[in-house]
Amino acid sequence: MSNFDATKPDIRLWADLVKTLVPYVPGEQPKHNNLCKLNTNENPFPPSPKVAEAIQAEIANQADNLRFYPAPESDKLREVMAQTYSVNPNQIFVGNGSDEVLAHIFACFFVKNLPVLTPDIGYSFYPVYADTFGVDLQMIDLSKDFSINIDDYHQDCAGIIFANPNAPTGILLELDKIESLLKNHRNAVVVVDEAYIDFAENKSSAVSLIEKYDNLVVTQTFSKSRSLAGLRVGMAFANPSLIEALNRYKNSFNSYPLDKLAQVGAVASLQDVDYFNDCCQKVIALRQNLVNDLQNLGFEILPSQANFIFAKPPVAMGETKQVFEKLREQGVIVRHFNKPKISDYLRITIGTQKQNQRLVECLRSL
Amino acid sequence: MSNFDATKPDIRLWADLVKTLVPYVPGEQPKHNNLCKLNTNENPFPPSPKVAEAIQAEIANQADNLRFYPAPESDKLREVMAQTYSVNPNQIFVGNGSDEVLAHIFACFFVKNLPVLTPDIGYSFYPVYADTFGVDLQMIDLSKDFSINIDDYHQDCAGIIFANPNAPTGILLELDKIESLLKNHRNAVVVVDEAYIDFAENKSSAVSLIEKYDNLVVTQTFSKSRSLAGLRVGMAFANPSLIEALNRYKNSFNSYPLDKLAQVGAVASLQDVDYFNDCCQKVIALRQNLVNDLQNLGFEILPSQANFIFAKPPVAMGETKQVFEKLREQGVIVRHFNKPKISDYLRITIGTQKQNQRLVECLRSL
Repeated sequence: MSNFDATKPDIRLWADLVKTLVPYVPGEQPKHNNLCKLNTNENPFPPSPKVAEAIQAEIANQADNLRFYPAPESDKLREVMAQTYSVNPNQIFVGNGSDEVLAHIFACFFVKNLPVLTPDIGYSFYPVYADTFGVDLQMIDLSKDFSINIDDYHQDCAGIIFANPNAPTGILLELDKIESLLKNHRNAVVVVDEAYIDFAENKSSAVSLIEKYDNLVVTQTFSKSRSLAGLRVGMAFANPSLIEALNRYKNSFNSYPLDKLAQVGAVASLQDVDYFNDCCQKVIALRQNLVNDLQNLGFEILPSQANFIFAKPPVAMGETKQVFEKLREQGVIVRHFNKPKISDYLRITIGTQKQNQRLVECLRSL
Repeated sequence: MSNFDATKPDIRLWADLVKTLVPYVPGEQPKHNNLCKLNTNENPFPPSPKVAEAIQAEIANQADNLRFYPAPESDKLREVMAQTYSVNPNQIFVGNGSDEVLAHIFACFFVKNLPVLTPDIGYSFYPVYADTFGVDLQMIDLSKDFSINIDDYHQDCAGIIFANPNAPTGILLELDKIESLLKNHRNAVVVVDEAYIDFAENKSSAVSLIEKYDNLVVTQTFSKSRSLAGLRVGMAFANPSLIEALNRYKNSFNSYPLDKLAQVGAVASLQDVDYFNDCCQKVIALRQNLVNDLQNLGFEILPSQANFIFAKPPVAMGETKQVFEKLREQGVIVRHFNKPKISDYLRITIGTQKQNQRLVECLRSL
C-alpha cells in the first residue's frame, strides 16, 4: 500500500458526489525553521498568556478531566462570548473553526431551489462547499476597484455570502451597505464572514445587526485576531431560529466538535480583553508601516482592513509569479493565486516588525 | 431573545432537510460532583500521564505554537498510529471523534441507490446519519439472543454498518463471520465500528483484514479505551482508495478537524503502550467482577466484550425504568433506552471498583 497513487484511486465503491469533489487547498505549512511565513494570515503574536494557563489547569491531575466528553454545546464558552459581544447565548453557534461553521451554514440555509450569490473574488472555500452540498453558487463580478457593489446583487436568491473584509482583497464593505442587502433580501440568508473584522480600524462588525435582521448570519474565528489557528474555534451569530437550525444539523453530524482544551482556551482568550485589543492595534500599526514601505518600492496596494494586504509589484520587478518564487527562494513565503483578475497580486500576511522588514529587504534586492 | 423556545423555531429560512432532522441525543453530562456516572461509557481511569506532558510541551512559550494551523492531515499522528496498528499511514483517516469519521463514511460510501443494512439494535447515531445524508438505512433484526446473524444480511446493498462489540448489547461478532460478510458483499462497503474493541478479551480487531478486503472500513476512537473522550480523536482504517475518498470529502468540508493539542495528546497516548494495555486489562477484570456481583443479585447479563454491560434486573426489583430512576435518585446514573426489545435492560458503564461497589450496594438496597 506504500506505492498507492492518491491521484488515481479506485473509485468503484465511492458515492457519486465524492467522485466529483475538488477539495479546498489550504496554504502550505512548511516545516523549515528559518522561514518567514507570511502566507496563511496567522497572527504574528502569541495568544493571551491566559490561554496556556487555562489549558494547564484543565490538564491538572494527569489530565483526568479528558476522560469525560466535553460540553456538546460549549455552554460556558457561549456564555462568555455572549457577554463579550453583547448578545444572548442562544444567538451563538460555535464550531470546529469557522470553516466547519460555514459548512453547516451551507447545509442549513443554502440548499434550496434558488442560487446563492457571492463575489467572484472571495474565500475560495465557498465554491467547494457549494459542490459538497449541491448549492447553485453564482459568482458576481467585483467592481474594477475590487469592491463589492451591492446593486449587482438585486436578484432572487436563497442567500448571499461574502467575507468582510473580503479575502484576498482586504477591502471592507460598510455596514450601511450590508444593511441595504439585508433589507432587499428578506427571504434570503445573508452571511457575512468576518474572519478578519477585528483588524478593521473602526471594528464595524455586523453582529450589531442580528437583533434587527432575522436573515443575517455573521461568522467569526479565533484563528486570526486571537492567534489560535491551532485550536480550531469559530462561531456564528444570528437570530435564535437560525442558530437552532445549525444546532440540529450539528447534532445530526457530530455532537462534540470542540474538545475540552479548545473550549477552555477560547474562554481564556475572550476574558483577556486588554491583551486582545492591544494585539489588534499592533497588527493595524504594522500593516500601515508595511503598506508605506511597499508603496515606496512602487507596489500598488488595495485598501486593507485585514491582517494581510493584497499588493501588486511594480512592473520593474517582473511578473508577480516570479516575484513570489524569488521570495520563496529566500525563505519568505507569501501567497499567489494563479487565477484570472488577481494573478498580478500577492497576498501578504502582516508579520512582526522583523518579518516585515525581512520581506521589504528581500524585495528591495530583487 | 432570552424567551426563545427552541422547540418552536421560525423555520422560514431553513433548508428542507433541516426541518426534518431529529438529532442524536448523547448521554447526559450532569455537573453534580458526588455522582456515580456510569452512563456514557467513559473510562474510569485517567489517560496516560504522557498525554498531559505532551500537551504541556505544546503550550510552552505562551502557547505560541497555537498561532499556527495544525497539520491538516495529522501526519505525525497517522504515522505513529500506523506503527501501532501495523498498517500504512495511507490506510488511516483521522477525524474529530469517530462520530465525525462515521458521518464522512456515510457521505462517501452510503449515498447510493441501494439500501444500507444495520442491526435494529445498535448505535443510535446511525439512523440520524442516514437522515442527514439521505441514505436508505434498513434495520435487520438481531437474533433472539441479541447476536448478529450474518445470514440475515444476504441481500443487495450499498453497505453494512454495525458496532463490534455491538452497542448497547456488548456482544462481539467473531472475525470469521465478518470475513464472510466481506466476501459475500464485494461491492458493498462493510463498516465495522470498533469503538469498544480494546475491551474484548482476545482483541480480535478487523483491522487485520483491511489489506485483504478493499471493501472494509474499521473505525475506532480514543474516547473509550484511551480515556480521551474530552479530546475528540477518532479514526478509520481501510484500503487507501477508500481513505482517499474520506480525505477528499473532509477537505471539502473542514480542512483541520483535529487541533494541535488533540494531535499531540493522541500521539502520546499511542506511545505509552504499557499504560494502555494495563488500563484495558483492569477494565476487563472489573467487568468480570461486576457481572458476578449483578448475577448474584439476579440480573440477566448479555455476554459483554465492551466497557459496559447490558443487564436486565430481576423481576423482584420492579420495572427496569423504575430501577433506573431509583438509582438516579441515589446519584448513580446509568443509561436506559425506552425502546422496543431493550426497555427491560440497563446499559451500565464499567466504573472503578469503588463506583461499581456503590452501584451494587444501591441495587441491593432497592
